[in-house]
Parts: sequence; structure tokens; C-alpha cells
Amino acid sequence: MVRNLLKAGFKVTTYGRRKPVVDELVSAGAVAAGSPSETAQASDVVITMLPDSPDVKEVVTGENGILQGARPGMTVIDMSTISPSVAREIAELAASKGVDFLDAPVSGGEKGAVEGTLSIMVGGRQEVYEKCLPILQALGKTIIYMGESGMGQTTKLCNQIICVGNILAACEGLMLGAKAGLDMEKLLSVVSAGAAGSWMLSNLAPKMLQRDFEPGFKVKLQQKDLRLALAAAEELKLPLPGTSLIHQLFRAVQAAGMDEKGTQALITALEKLAEHKMDDGETS
Amino acid sequence: MVRNLLKAGFKVTTYGRRKPVVDELVSAGAVAAGSPSETAQASDVVITMLPDSPDVKEVVTGENGILQGARPGMTVIDMSTISPSVAREIAELAASKGVDFLDAPVSGGEKGAVEGTLSIMVGGRQEVYEKCLPILQALGKTIIYMGESGMGQTTKLCNQIICVGNILAACEGLMLGAKAGLDMEKLLSVVSAGAAGSWMLSNLAPKMLQRDFEPGFKVKLQQKDLRLALAAAEELKLPLPGTSLIHQLFRAVQAAGMDEKGTQALITALEKLAEHKMDDGETS
Repeated sequence: MVRNLLKAGFKVTTYGRRKPVVDELVSAGAVAAGSPSETAQASDVVITMLPDSPDVKEVVTGENGILQGARPGMTVIDMSTISPSVAREIAELAASKGVDFLDAPVSGGEKGAVEGTLSIMVGGRQEVYEKCLPILQALGKTIIYMGESGMGQTTKLCNQIICVGNILAACEGLMLGAKAGLDMEKLLSVVSAGAAGSWMLSNLAPKMLQRDFEPGFKVKLQQKDLRLALAAAEELKLPLPGTSLIHQLFRAVQAAGMDEKGTQALITALEKLAEHKMDDGETS
Repeated sequence: MVRNLLKAGFKVTTYGRRKPVVDELVSAGAVAAGSPSETAQASDVVITMLPDSPDVKEVVTGENGILQGARPGMTVIDMSTISPSVAREIAELAASKGVDFLDAPVSGGEKGAVEGTLSIMVGGRQEVYEKCLPILQALGKTIIYMGESGMGQTTKLCNQIICVGNILAACEGLMLGAKAGLDMEKLLSVVSAGAAGSWMLSNLAPKMLQRDFEPGFKVKLQQKDLRLALAAAEELKLPLPGTSLIHQLFRAVQAAGMDEKGTQALITALEKLAEHKMDDGETS
């Protein structure tokens, strides 16, 4: 993402805990800062991309954090996937120092980040979104303004809920076919073409059949997103029985040590419950 | 379907319990028979299209049923959606009288039946399938041979499992957005385009947003198919936790008197759990 900003002609000051990564970015043309606070002092817009809600809160609002080095009129864009309510909280703290904050989580994976083709879902004040659009356009292809602070994060969580639901649907449909001894390639081509079709069925089910569990999107990141989705639903007093079940089934995948595998590994939890692997052949 | 057979040049003898329907088909060129047995006496191939497993068993193997009027070398094609194991049982009974049996359930709905564009998933002996192909081609567009007796039905049930999983996924994703006060049209357009995309999201979610619960595919038929899927899974000792949950949630839709509505009505069960309708507006 730093490379894409440099390529688009932006001056970039960067801070990160892993020195080799920072060194690489400096060779590419970025300037290194000693802390988030220093990064803010050197910049008009600061972008954060971090694992989870507490990390973003610490880096933006903590000691030597971005707000300590910020001036009124600056903008912070958080592109991590975090809790919508934490995003709103940070936005309020930033506003109290005259700093604008956008939540702008992405989808599209490492590939989208490298190629600058991410989808970016943005929450915050619309005029701030419009001011930052040239920066976002250097990083992504589909950029959508979703509404006030937190709405970018909420959109991302809705997306993740639908994604995992479609993965479980594919798993259960395939499992019945496998256990009954169907020709799985034929089954997949029949169901993919019609009303059962989905991006997940087309993209992950072939990997399930080939026992290819390399990520794609890692189980541990999916679980973080589902934790955030279920926490957001809890705050809203919203029951999500399917998502909750899927979160538990992914926990079984984690219990089997597959945290770093791709989300298609959900099939292994179903296989374990059935004591039947998809490639066991005919009815057992 | 009778009309499409007549249009393709087949002579059709028809039997049905609703006289006005039979009269209409007779005006279109079909010949009326007095019982399934008489239909069989007048035909080389008999097609059944009935609500459920017991109906097919009765009409094929019962008193005055098809097998009573059948000659060795005849073929029965059942295009109903029924239990794979009942299909196998009927196939064996038919075989003991020298009669071939294909299970050939369809998808594509009333529209596909009228227009002759059904998808047909076929189980049974391959040479019988090949002999009957011209008949099936008069009724459907995508015709796939899936394997031995019962495999057509199993394929259909796998398809239905994936369909309902994708519907629940759409419902839960939309509910989070609705409860959080997102712009729902925007949300739908964002999530439909990416990794969360599915046929169900594109086709049923807009109806959910418009409160349009007209079928499409009726809740009561979906529930029948899920009952068959869960029974098939039970015979195979296969746990299907997601499908099972969805079957229960559709039961809540039935409890609300929406048996004859379309499957997009699943959203009403989620709305009831949350005490929040999707069009209630902002966060409540």
C-alpha cells in the first residue's frame, strides 16, 4: 500500500515495528519516523493498518500515538477491520482535538493491496471522505462512502457474515454428496451454475475437493472478523444464530491447529463431525 | 410439461386427479386415462410429477398403479423431488417386474417447466438415461446424468442445502446492516459484487428489502426438501448443523402462517428474533 501511494506521487512517512519492512519501504522512497506521533507531525493524512481494535486505539490515542503528534485539520484514516463502536469512539476522541477520522476497511486480500485494487468501505464525514478520495484511489478500485463514523466497519462485517454463511452452505451441500458417493466434480459443476451458485462455491469448493487448504483468507483472521461481527450484533441486541454456529465450527478448525490455513478448511470441521473425508469415496 | 412433450411430437396419455387440468390437456392434444395403470398400458414411458415420496410410491407401486399396467421393457421417469432411498426402493420394485426407473428431479420452477428450460438431474441405469434423453430434452435445457438410482435425488438435495444456506447468509448480513442503520441499497450493491456474492443475494435480497414475499419458491416446498435432505443425512449418519438450524428457522416462518410465501420470507424469522424490521429505519 505504501508502494502504491509512492507510485501515485504522494510523499510517505512510515512507521512500523518490523525494521526490515520499514527499511524496504525507505529504499522504495518513503521516509522512516520513530513513532506514530512523529509520523503525524510529518503528515497531513495518517493511515493505519493494524490487526485489531485495541491496536488501532493504542496507535491513534495512546502514548506517542498519532493524536499526540497531530494538528487540528489533520485526518486519520484507519483501514484495519475493527469494531464499529471502537471506530466511533476513536473518531470522537480525534474530533475533540480537531482531527478528522475515517474508518475505511478493505476487502480484496493481499493481492488487492499489492495491485491497488482493494474495495474500500468508508465511514465518517462526507467532506473528509471527498478530500481523501485521491489517496484512497491510489490504494483501491471500488471505493464507497457508506455514511457516518463506524458505517465502513459495519459494512465490512455484514460482508464477512454473508461470506462465511456461503462457505458453510457449500460445505454442507458437498458433504451430503460426498457421503452419498456422488461424483463430486459433476455435483460441483451442476450446483455452481444455478440458484445455489455463489462466489465462495465457485472459488473455495474446488479447493476443498482438491484438499488445498492454503490461504486465501486465513481462518484466524476470519475468526477475528466473526468475533467483531458477533460483538457488534450483541451491542445491537441482534441474534445471529447462523453466524454464531459458524464461529463455533471455525473454532473446531482452530482446535485442529489450522489457524493459518484458508477458510475453505471449514470443510474439515464438518468432515470430523461426520467421521468422513470428502475423498473417502463411496458411501461408508 | 405435457404441452412441451406434445410440442416435441410425442403422443401423450395423461392421468391426474384434477379434472379441469386433464380436460385442458386433452384440448391441447393429450389422451385422458382413467388411472395410472391405464396410463401405463397405453405408454412406453410414464412420467410422474408428484408432491412427495409416499405419493410416488403409491402411484407407481400401489393398487391401479403404474406397475400394474406395465410391461417388461417399459420405463418410469419420476421427476418429483423425493427421498433418494425411496427412489432406490421403487427402482428395485420396478426392476423386479422388468421395468426401468429413473429418478429425474428438476430445478427451475414453474417458469422452467412452462418454457421447457428445467435443469434435470438424473439417476438410474445409464443406457436407460440415454434412451430417454429425447424426452428429457423436450422438458429441460440442462440435463445431467449423475449415476445410479437415487443419485438424481441426492444431487437435488445437495443443491437445496446450498440454496438455503445462502439465503440465511444473506438474511444475517442484511439484518446487521439494518439494525445498525446502514443504507440498505448501498449495502446490497457493495456486498453483491464481491466475495459475498451469490445467486440468492442477487435475486432474493432485493425482494426482502422491498417486503415482496410472493413466491418464487414456496416456503412449504422448501421445507419438504429440507426434511428430505435431513432424512437422507440421517440415513448416512451425517450431521448438518446449519441446514438443521435453517429448517427450524423456516418453521418459525410457517408458524407465522407464511407457508405459501417465497423463501425470502426467511428474513421475517430473523426480524422476529431481533424485534426489528429491516425497514424500521435507524438504530433502535
